[in-house]
Amino acid sequence: MKTLVIISHPTLDESSSQQFLVQSFPESENVTLHHLEKNYPDEEIDVQKEQALLKNHDRILFQFPFYWYSSPPLLKKWQDEVLEEHFAFGHRGNQLNGKAFGLILVIGVAEKEYQTGGLEGFSISELTKPYQAVARKTGMHYLKPLEIYQFPYMTEEEKMKLLISYQQWLTIDRPDSLKYREEWMIDQLETLDHTLLDSSESSFIIDKAIELLEDNRIELDELNMHIDHLHE
Amino acid sequence: MKTLVIISHPTLDESSSQQFLVQSFPESENVTLHHLEKNYPDEEIDVQKEQALLKNHDRILFQFPFYWYSSPPLLKKWQDEVLEEHFAFGHRGNQLNGKAFGLILVIGVAEKEYQTGGLEGFSISELTKPYQAVARKTGMHYLKPLEIYQFPYMTEEEKMKLLISYQQWLTIDRPDSLKYREEWMIDQLETLDHTLLDSSESSFIIDKAIELLEDNRIELDELNMHIDHLHE
Repeated sequence: MKTLVIISHPTLDESSSQQFLVQSFPESENVTLHHLEKNYPDEEIDVQKEQALLKNHDRILFQFPFYWYSSPPLLKKWQDEVLEEHFAFGHRGNQLNGKAFGLILVIGVAEKEYQTGGLEGFSISELTKPYQAVARKTGMHYLKPLEIYQFPYMTEEEKMKLLISYQQWLTIDRPDSLKYREEWMIDQLETLDHTLLDSSESSFIIDKAIELLEDNRIELDELNMHIDHLHE
Repeated sequence: MKTLVIISHPTLDESSSQQFLVQSFPESENVTLHHLEKNYPDEEIDVQKEQALLKNHDRILFQFPFYWYSSPPLLKKWQDEVLEEHFAFGHRGNQLNGKAFGLILVIGVAEKEYQTGGLEGFSISELTKPYQAVARKTGMHYLKPLEIYQFPYMTEEEKMKLLISYQQWLTIDRPDSLKYREEWMIDQLETLDHTLLDSSESSFIIDKAIELLEDNRIELDELNMHIDHLHE
């Protein structure tokens, strides 16, 4: 599973949230970061190159600040030019068919305001309909978005949780599956550089954490089998 | 009632529908046509000038081709820069409060496809939620959009109907009211240059049409009064 993250932000260096995400970007040959404003300072998009990039990835993610309930202008320009007829839709336009498509939204207003009666009055599901329609028209599977609300007000703990969610979002095949997230966590714990840990005690605790996660999974799998059996 | 029509189209001269609309634009001091790409070929928007223009009008209309269920990029840039906090929303940001806001959408796909089960799968009401949210946040009254489907396939008669709808949309206080549309039609008929008509017969027909419209209105008003009376 190869993931392409297309970032659009007119002033990326000045955004603390975007800087945090860029610095949290996982080092993996299966994940590509692609910042539009950096690649195209003159806004002249290389359509052939962008289409090749899309073809070469299985999951396409748009990451942007949710200005006026949509993306910055350059990402819209990219959509209008790159997602051409006969490539993305229409006759023989099946190049994106079967890929996954999702949004990583950085949102300035609190989550609770995105509902009827809230300050914004509409839900994120309602406001992102145009993107759901893009996925539908191009035959892509629309993912649940990763929504990041009010980053500047986040505690350190919330930021660490975000870092984990973000890395999982980009690297795990199915980030909405508990099983896949567990496997990811075990993998991370196993590849930790134990020499960097302050004592053999931390090392012991990590081994125990892995053991516990694995035991939990065995128990969950057994329960699932039991339930399946009851239904037969 | 002063109306501002903000048009965004990257290649206006090449669009037959936009050319038709621009040529149909009513000559009136109360209607302002403002084509963004023409005014800002370098895309450097004069925020002060745009905000002054907004303040000077009572009804703001966005006219654009509905590419990927949204506007061309320059109109989005305009939104992000002109609709600032403290001007359009937030503390003391009440400059657009009470104005009317609407969309004039030029749409390439047939109307029937914009529904569940149709090719596009979503309705125009769903896809334009971000604009409804803009109206809500800035305190503007959201109008029913003027939707123009598949202009190149229109018959001459359909185009004439569109011309009338478009002119009414821009000049009448309440284009959704039959009474206001009648008044507009009488006004148009009365100001026709009779010397341009081919015979005195046409002139006679027009006078009769005006008379008929006026008689209809009197009868409708009487019926309304009668109904109100019954309810008392």
